[in-house]
Amino acid sequence: LRTGFPEAVWGPGKTPEQIAQIMEQLHQRGSLALATRIEAQVHEQIRRLLPQVQYSPLARLCWIPRAQAIAYPGQLSVISAGTADLPVAEEAALTAELSGFQVKRLWDVGVAGIHRLLQNRQALQADVLIVVAGMEGALASVVAGLANCPVIAVPTSIGYGASFQGLAALLTMLNSCAAGVGVVNIDNGFGAAILAGQILRCGQQMATRLNSATADKA
Amino acid sequence: LRTGFPEAVWGPGKTPEQIAQIMEQLHQRGSLALATRIEAQVHEQIRRLLPQVQYSPLARLCWIPRAQAIAYPGQLSVISAGTADLPVAEEAALTAELSGFQVKRLWDVGVAGIHRLLQNRQALQADVLIVVAGMEGALASVVAGLANCPVIAVPTSIGYGASFQGLAALLTMLNSCAAGVGVVNIDNGFGAAILAGQILRCGQQMATRLNSATADKA
Amino acid sequence: LRTGFPEAVWGPGKTPEQIAQIMEQLHQRGSLALATRIEAQVHEQIRRLLPQVQYSPLARLCWIPRAQAIAYPGQLSVISAGTADLPVAEEAALTAELSGFQVKRLWDVGVAGIHRLLQNRQALQADVLIVVAGMEGALASVVAGLANCPVIAVPTSIGYGASFQGLAALLTMLNSCAAGVGVVNIDNGFGAAILAGQILRCGQQMATRLNSATADKA
Amino acid sequence: LRTGFPEAVWGPGKTPEQIAQIMEQLHQRGSLALATRIEAQVHEQIRRLLPQVQYSPLARLCWIPRAQAIAYPGQLSVISAGTADLPVAEEAALTAELSGFQVKRLWDVGVAGIHRLLQNRQALQADVLIVVAGMEGALASVVAGLANCPVIAVPTSIGYGASFQGLAALLTMLNSCAAGVGVVNIDNGFGAAILAGQILRCGQQMATRLNSATADKA
Amino acid sequence: LRTGFPEAVWGPGKTPEQIAQIMEQLHQRGSLALATRIEAQVHEQIRRLLPQVQYSPLARLCWIPRAQAIAYPGQLSVISAGTADLPVAEEAALTAELSGFQVKRLWDVGVAGIHRLLQNRQALQADVLIVVAGMEGALASVVAGLANCPVIAVPTSIGYGASFQGLAALLTMLNSCAAGVGVVNIDNGFGAAILAGQILRCGQQMATRLNSATADKA
Amino acid sequence: LRTGFPEAVWGPGKTPEQIAQIMEQLHQRGSLALATRIEAQVHEQIRRLLPQVQYSPLARLCWIPRAQAIAYPGQLSVISAGTADLPVAEEAALTAELSGFQVKRLWDVGVAGIHRLLQNRQALQADVLIVVAGMEGALASVVAGLANCPVIAVPTSIGYGASFQGLAALLTMLNSCAAGVGVVNIDNGFGAAILAGQILRCGQQMATRLNSATADKA
Amino acid sequence: LRTGFPEAVWGPGKTPEQIAQIMEQLHQRGSLALATRIEAQVHEQIRRLLPQVQYSPLARLCWIPRAQAIAYPGQLSVISAGTADLPVAEEAALTAELSGFQVKRLWDVGVAGIHRLLQNRQALQADVLIVVAGMEGALASVVAGLANCPVIAVPTSIGYGASFQGLAALLTMLNSCAAGVGVVNIDNGFGAAILAGQILRCGQQMATRLNSATADKA
Amino acid sequence: LRTGFPEAVWGPGKTPEQIAQIMEQLHQRGSLALATRIEAQVHEQIRRLLPQVQYSPLARLCWIPRAQAIAYPGQLSVISAGTADLPVAEEAALTAELSGFQVKRLWDVGVAGIHRLLQNRQALQADVLIVVAGMEGALASVVAGLANCPVIAVPTSIGYGASFQGLAALLTMLNSCAAGVGVVNIDNGFGAAILAGQILRCGQQMATRLNSATADKA
Ligand SMILES: Nc1ncnc2c1ncn2[C@@H]1O[C@H](COP(=O)(O)O)[C@@H](O)[C@H]1O
Ligand SMILES: Nc1ncnc2c1ncn2[C@@H]1O[C@H](COP(=O)(O)O)[C@@H](O)[C@H]1O
Ligand SMILES: Nc1ncnc2c1ncn2[C@@H]1O[C@H](COP(=O)(O)O)[C@@H](O)[C@H]1O
Ligand SMILES: Nc1ncnc2c1ncn2[C@@H]1O[C@H](COP(=O)(O)O)[C@@H](O)[C@H]1O
Ligand SMILES: [Mg+2]
Ligand SMILES: [Mg+2]
Ligand SMILES: [Mg+2]
Ligand SMILES: [Mg+2]
Ligand SMILES: [Mg+2]
Ligand SMILES: [Mg+2]
Ligand SMILES: [Mg+2]
Ligand SMILES: [Mg+2]
Repeated sequence: LRTGFPEAVWGPGKTPEQIAQIMEQLHQRGSLALATRIEAQVHEQIRRLLPQVQYSPLARLCWIPRAQAIAYPGQLSVISAGTADLPVAEEAALTAELSGFQVKRLWDVGVAGIHRLLQNRQALQADVLIVVAGMEGALASVVAGLANCPVIAVPTSIGYGASFQGLAALLTMLNSCAAGVGVVNIDNGFGAAILAGQILRCGQQMATRLNSATADKA
Repeated sequence: LRTGFPEAVWGPGKTPEQIAQIMEQLHQRGSLALATRIEAQVHEQIRRLLPQVQYSPLARLCWIPRAQAIAYPGQLSVISAGTADLPVAEEAALTAELSGFQVKRLWDVGVAGIHRLLQNRQALQADVLIVVAGMEGALASVVAGLANCPVIAVPTSIGYGASFQGLAALLTMLNSCAAGVGVVNIDNGFGAAILAGQILRCGQQMATRLNSATADKA
Repeated sequence: LRTGFPEAVWGPGKTPEQIAQIMEQLHQRGSLALATRIEAQVHEQIRRLLPQVQYSPLARLCWIPRAQAIAYPGQLSVISAGTADLPVAEEAALTAELSGFQVKRLWDVGVAGIHRLLQNRQALQADVLIVVAGMEGALASVVAGLANCPVIAVPTSIGYGASFQGLAALLTMLNSCAAGVGVVNIDNGFGAAILAGQILRCGQQMATRLNSATADKA
Repeated sequence: LRTGFPEAVWGPGKTPEQIAQIMEQLHQRGSLALATRIEAQVHEQIRRLLPQVQYSPLARLCWIPRAQAIAYPGQLSVISAGTADLPVAEEAALTAELSGFQVKRLWDVGVAGIHRLLQNRQALQADVLIVVAGMEGALASVVAGLANCPVIAVPTSIGYGASFQGLAALLTMLNSCAAGVGVVNIDNGFGAAILAGQILRCGQQMATRLNSATADKA
Repeated sequence: LRTGFPEAVWGPGKTPEQIAQIMEQLHQRGSLALATRIEAQVHEQIRRLLPQVQYSPLARLCWIPRAQAIAYPGQLSVISAGTADLPVAEEAALTAELSGFQVKRLWDVGVAGIHRLLQNRQALQADVLIVVAGMEGALASVVAGLANCPVIAVPTSIGYGASFQGLAALLTMLNSCAAGVGVVNIDNGFGAAILAGQILRCGQQMATRLNSATADKA
Repeated sequence: LRTGFPEAVWGPGKTPEQIAQIMEQLHQRGSLALATRIEAQVHEQIRRLLPQVQYSPLARLCWIPRAQAIAYPGQLSVISAGTADLPVAEEAALTAELSGFQVKRLWDVGVAGIHRLLQNRQALQADVLIVVAGMEGALASVVAGLANCPVIAVPTSIGYGASFQGLAALLTMLNSCAAGVGVVNIDNGFGAAILAGQILRCGQQMATRLNSATADKA
Repeated sequence: LRTGFPEAVWGPGKTPEQIAQIMEQLHQRGSLALATRIEAQVHEQIRRLLPQVQYSPLARLCWIPRAQAIAYPGQLSVISAGTADLPVAEEAALTAELSGFQVKRLWDVGVAGIHRLLQNRQALQADVLIVVAGMEGALASVVAGLANCPVIAVPTSIGYGASFQGLAALLTMLNSCAAGVGVVNIDNGFGAAILAGQILRCGQQMATRLNSATADKA
Repeated sequence: LRTGFPEAVWGPGKTPEQIAQIMEQLHQRGSLALATRIEAQVHEQIRRLLPQVQYSPLARLCWIPRAQAIAYPGQLSVISAGTADLPVAEEAALTAELSGFQVKRLWDVGVAGIHRLLQNRQALQADVLIVVAGMEGALASVVAGLANCPVIAVPTSIGYGASFQGLAALLTMLNSCAAGVGVVNIDNGFGAAILAGQILRCGQQMATRLNSATADKA
């Protein structure tokens, strides 16, 4: 079993009743109960059934916090290009926070104004980066060139015309000339957070192993 | 008639004899005679028929210079991302030079190493820029964000897998979040040079008009 | 910094309150405040918050004019193929006018009735042309063949079936056998106007340089 | 049975022996024996087996003429855009001639130089037109707007980059804003000729019917 | 000028007022005034402004008949595959009738039940055929194999999944192994009728010419 | 384990030595040893290493027969559209025969000449049908409409232009308006034979079960 | 005629009155009357006209049962990956049951949790399997590898971003490295059931033939 | 600067001389000098110039080892589906080893025979996994469901027909219903290794930080 990670309910196509019921089950098992892609009015209906749910309208996430908060080591930064990419970026950032990770956010640093990114380079000093961008999606390549850690690229469906609902950004990211970039599905902020979480957990486990190896030697 | 611009012969699918014959006609009309996409061995055969031709193996261009050199005002910079993009970049740069324009070249400034571009920013101080990039093609957006002049973006077919022979770079450039970018066909260095030339000629004509208007007032 | 060009707010996905707030900030900085893709009812709501806004329902543009009008030299013509292309064509034309450029409009000169275009050829006598066309988008090639200045081609999403929301017109324009055509994204009238503006500004700057060079010599 | 039309052998993937054998059978049945897409060296081998074959290297057609020539009424013009489109255009023209129809050819009238087409407008005075064009394929729309007869459009695979082996020209022709255009497959000059032949035969049959009706009345 | 053919108004994206106004102009010029893709409620609004309009809810056509009916010679059959293809088939059939041609209709003869088509083969005895089919669009090939006259194929957007809004049927028809098929855009019943009309007019003109030639000889 | 079915070696990208070695292993295990997509010269090299191999140049199959022939009950017909489809059709037919099934072949019954298919309808009286067609791939729908048994459709990459290497035929078959058609990958004659074999084996197993049930009752 | 299979009405684009009328006709002919893709409110309207109809809101099927139930031999299992795939899976399962076949259902055994599938392997012991999956559609390959009977794969349009409305799952299934998989159109649960039914009927007919052959021998 | 990672030369389109020269430079800087996509004959030519190079014909990698071997902590497993995927899988595995990481290889565990994967589950006990698969690419989802660490998915261009040169596998992996999967470009084994290396380095750095924090506390 994959421990520590949220069991998430994919909201679209489910009734508020169904979502509330699955969330309650997850919560009773002791897991973080998280539902994704929840519109404001759906949240209203879920809250009538489960008054303890919390909600982020920007991230479109609805959740019941864990009884006991968990705090994992490791630093994740989520970086996004445009205002319209925020829902996906926040889905990633909040999912990671709810999973127990510390998150730095750097919004609106699209490549058309590269200075804002360069002025905020300290945010690239992280254990893992998530880069969220639509339209031409070029931010992932620039960030991966500047950073020295794994980069998770999330194309968004933001754009019009030849962006083909995120296809342009997806292709850009897959073709990144900066090696060390892993790409997830269009708009998949949730999946990026899970992958980031697994990378940080991998780091923690290596720390434990190396630590005990060092201790053994000592 | 569009004056001052090279009448170019598109090489592929024509025999060396056909190419030589058209070039000779162009030359006798007093035009620059230019043939594009000419492989080395094709050039050899053309040269046997037309000993005065010159050739650039990198740009794959073959030409007979104008009897009288022309020098138009205006500054063009051609900027390219990777080594493999050079044939297209040089096709653009050389076509512009042969057309009578002054060209600055800035090679190998791909976005994965943004510093090289930033260290060479003076090349962006031009009247018009041509940006040549394959793979994810992100360079056009970054340059257009830094520069304050028209940018012509040339996607190249360099890449593999999900680059789909230049489609990824093409879509990136069309979706550039930096306004002021005009895109030409994949690998179309020649077309980019013609467009750049027309922009510079437009500038010259405006100068003449504004000049004479000022003179009239004076 | 790119001076003289409108800072535009991309309307879709923003609330009227958000749009009004950004417009006010732009206006207070002394810029032209321009919002694009604004539907009539959104404009109504913006106007309640910002009574000084102006609106073009055809161009779907909403703006607060600059306190002091600017008038740049240079002549732009915007040419469009069909009635259904007018919103995009007018987005281009009006953006250019609001940016301080003089604009001639030539509407409804689709290639299926080439005579109308030929009868209005004087409109092609410009410093830069914007050609707006949907369906098969063939107008750009015909215009570029007739004109002797840079051509910016804007494919529109007008059409049905195998037009694939503007893809057919986009491909047509990218493959134009007439060199000297730069293409922007589908329906991107705004971007075409910014590029046209940069070309005209490039002309003006060359004029200044050449003039002062001439003056120096004199 | 469809009478009067050539039974054609599609050459690719067949051995010279197979092609020669089918041609001989067709010839012995009294039909025109026509093989398409025949390269020069394949023709050489066929001719060794069937000395009476004729060959057009441009059209890549190989045939044994009918014992008795047929001459059908009606006028077909074949119009092509660029030099590289000639093999397809000539496949169409020659197939029609071998089928017994009279053909006018108008080559190299691409839309980037619309004047050449307008100067040769008399070629558009026909009973049916075949328009052959690659790259952006815009010629079909312009011709259909000028002509007053059925237009058969043949996209060719000529082009590069975003022409996607004829897809761009195909989409252009399918989206033609001039009604009255029927499109055939990419590079299908043969099929265009057969369709043109059927249109002319339809005309002849209507003439016969209408004539005899008139005669009956008289 | 193309005489005898309806000047049609493409309805989508126009207000009822705009449509009514153009129709009135066409009518006053003596043309058939025809508007396509008109939904029932749009028709209601047009009729309030132009009480003399007629309407076919199936074909989604709205028109004012010519003051004097025209009857051209020649026989057209319109053949369609499935019930869902009827709007497009009827758009073709009615447009042709309103243009003055005689039309036979053969509905619901999809290739999955080839017998119905074979039992109604007499409908294939025509001067020109229009075949309308969605989903896999195979009907065009079967009909073209059985008939001995020009075939116009109209793919429809009927289907789901891998029909990709008519793309599957379009490709099927373009690849028809039966020569003599001209294809129009997806759902373009109107365009098919115009092309059919031009074929029949070509027949009539050939008849007149041949007739007078015969008369001259006599 | 799936018993009775050939373990096949996919030839492309393997050396003759590798292929021969795997075939020998399969043979020694008592299986039919079958290699697919084997060109004639590769076969020559395999035969030098494994003299007992047999080869079909048309089907491009190379095999060592089972020591003891197996003969399963059930009737399979393989039906193909054009001459160029034969390699795929024969790959299917021969694979099925080598697997122990009885196969009827019906070649060259493309839908453009529907009569040949109708004259050979007795071939459709089978337990399962494989239909192989390229270009527009319409044969599968027609056959499925006539037959009363499962139909396996194999699109081939035969065609040109808008056939897009088999995509057109694939889409046609997936959209078949005749239910009861299962589609395999482009050119996958082998896979079609395996599926047909599994259907026939399913029939045999049902027979055994029903038989013994009947026997039990008796 | 194909006996025993439901004549189904495809609901979309038909009025409740039209659907009810066709269903009544089918019912009066003694067939099972089945309508697919029927939304709840459409069902309400049909039921007002035909009170005897039954309805499954999950499968979106509406039907009038046969007067006399039929029960065919053979075992079909329907296996689905995710909750969101259930409507398509149930369309397949219920269509098969209404056609007279016995159906086992195995829901929610997506490959991301392979254990649930392995724990329920007995469901793979069937005469034919239908596998329903969206997103990446990988379940079909895994099942086909484990099972020893024909597998019918149904891609669903469930997913987002790069699932492209079922295209990803469709391609996955067509490329299955496990032979013996036949694919139907995206979301085509009905078609999968018909194909499964024909496979089982083929088995039954083989049983009858083999039995009588055995009996003859006995 | 990104330390510890190989500076790789992308071989295609470079002459052996160019490759040798860049490798020598890298080597003299003290880096591992690695060239990718090197065919056997190219390697021969490089070796003549640089006798110390080593070569793997399977991985198509050519390199000069570091003077001093580095050994980083952390466990990587590379898992591949089919024999034809080995070049890409080995490119990943060898690149990682040459970079200083320990690598376990698990070959030929495609999902059509899920047992082999399940029998080798201990290979999934790693700090990071690379999964390499072509055709339908389903292995990544199955592995990600079984493993509890980050998964890097590499689609390969192995397959034919509807695999579209790796597109099918790419889409499968992007749509993986198992969260925690990052995808790289088609055939990009090198990029996967770099990303894996960065994940392991991130782990090591976290270990150092956490250890020193623990030490500080102690
Ligand atoms: N926003 C999201 N993006 C991608 N996957 C998601 C998202 N939310 C939930 N999931 C996945 O979808 C699965 C739940 O699907 P379901 O059973 O339909 O609720 C979970 O296992 C999650 O891994
Ligand atoms: N109609 C338009 N088409 C293309 N780009 C636009 C348009 N309107 C605004 N933009 C660009 O979008 C950016 C603003 O995006 P946003 O910050 O989301 O409002 C501006 O910098 C403009 O360059
Ligand atoms: N160049 C061509 N383009 C399209 N179809 C052709 C061509 N040449 C032959 N055909 C058709 O292909 C069929 C012959 O194919 P085959 O039997 O393979 O020789 C004939 O019926 C022709 O209608
Ligand atoms: N096999 C490979 N796949 C993907 N990227 C590669 C590969 N080999 C080298 N590279 C990248 O390509 C760049 C070198 O390109 P080049 O300068 O053309 O040799 C390096 O920075 C690598 O990150
Ligand atoms: Mg980096
Ligand atoms: Mg700029
Ligand atoms: Mg021009
Ligand atoms: Mg016309
Ligand atoms: Mg015919
Ligand atoms: Mg059937
Ligand atoms: Mg199996
Ligand atoms: Mg996992």
